Amino acid sequence: MSGCLYGVGLGPGDPELITLKAARIISQTRLIAYFQKRGGGHARAIAASLMNGHHEELPLNYPVTTEYKADDPRYETLIHDFYEKAAGNIAARLKSGEDVAVLCEGDPFFYGSFMHLYRRLAQDYPCHVVPGITGMSGGWTNAGTPIAWGNDVFTVIPGTLDSESLARRFKSTDAAAVIKLGRNLPRVRAALAEAGLIDRAIYIEYGTMAAERILPLHEKLDDNAPYFSLIVVPGEGRRL
Amino acid sequence: MSGCLYGVGLGPGDPELITLKAARIISQTRLIAYFQKRGGGHARAIAASLMNGHHEELPLNYPVTTEYKADDPRYETLIHDFYEKAAGNIAARLKSGEDVAVLCEGDPFFYGSFMHLYRRLAQDYPCHVVPGITGMSGGWTNAGTPIAWGNDVFTVIPGTLDSESLARRFKSTDAAAVIKLGRNLPRVRAALAEAGLIDRAIYIEYGTMAAERILPLHEKLDDNAPYFSLIVVPGEGRRL
Repeated sequence: MSGCLYGVGLGPGDPELITLKAARIISQTRLIAYFQKRGGGHARAIAASLMNGHHEELPLNYPVTTEYKADDPRYETLIHDFYEKAAGNIAARLKSGEDVAVLCEGDPFFYGSFMHLYRRLAQDYPCHVVPGITGMSGGWTNAGTPIAWGNDVFTVIPGTLDSESLARRFKSTDAAAVIKLGRNLPRVRAALAEAGLIDRAIYIEYGTMAAERILPLHEKLDDNAPYFSLIVVPGEGRRL
Repeated sequence: MSGCLYGVGLGPGDPELITLKAARIISQTRLIAYFQKRGGGHARAIAASLMNGHHEELPLNYPVTTEYKADDPRYETLIHDFYEKAAGNIAARLKSGEDVAVLCEGDPFFYGSFMHLYRRLAQDYPCHVVPGITGMSGGWTNAGTPIAWGNDVFTVIPGTLDSESLARRFKSTDAAAVIKLGRNLPRVRAALAEAGLIDRAIYIEYGTMAAERILPLHEKLDDNAPYFSLIVVPGEGRRL
């Protein structure tokens, strides 16, 4: 009998924002996999207090992070081959009857790397996914800012979009979160200015983690934003 | 010294999707408040296993639910007065030095009733908010459907919007979640059809709860949708 593949959402970074279910599955599963870039990743760190000598760890090391742009064909090939190989390694363990839990930052089905394993494995093996709190939710919570009210339309906008698309999206939504900010910060800032939203925008890096930093975007003067930074624009819908 | 107001996100419904932090705060706080409609609410039910004889409960009973449309001035007046009174009652307890934990379905700062207390109390009293997994995230997870990939734009659309706005929103996004579905289902379905999205849409009611029901929208033939139902339209962004 095959093992079960678990996709375990860990939430935005604070280990106390792990769910009871995620904690139980991690403690019950011997083989724990996680994505990480060179030098270590957040998933393993968030779950650190739940890991112990009884676990076998299977790190999945991204072959590239920011060396290529995401639309570079070399990136596509490298990352495709990486997911193929990672899925193959996990499939071998599942086939031998072992359960495998994949630790996922945030929510596994919300722009998560886990989805690339899931689409390769879910047809052939039992699979169970545990949702997690998104990074953006950890961010707006610690910013002390409700994000959407009443009939607000709320849009999640990848900072990787071109400048024109960014501005159009900002102009046509009531509330927004910009993910995948990183080196796109200057273009995102310009598009927010064009849409008249600079003064409502809040910049957040490492939300809910020890290194958390939250400030109004107009006070963020440099262009250095880590990949795990984001911007939120709270809605102004009906107050009752 | 004033007590602290806690806004405690409980997640989408499965009690195991409560976070470690929410569980700790509930167990450490004597006075527990929660919104409910006549006949009981979900928040109290989700947290039931954490409640015991040491808690004092402060139910906040909505004066209306679906008797009036949300844009009826009678609704606005009733619900405004209700929030004023609820905030006043909680303020009195905070002033006397008691902590108060408000149980919140989903994520407190994401279209939550708690926000109406928070904006009245957060200037005057210490306040701490614990994010939760949203209902929509619980929904797409149990539907087995990643919601957004790569550069997908993801839009949260209240079903209360007019038909034209609904269709325009559906046409201009890569992925969507429709919240506040309820009696808006027929209009939402028509707008999804106009946007060519019926076959990608998934209908979810009571996601992650015992009464959960998930099916392709085109198999949902009647128009009866509880308020806690939603529709998700998964994105088709880049697979790697």
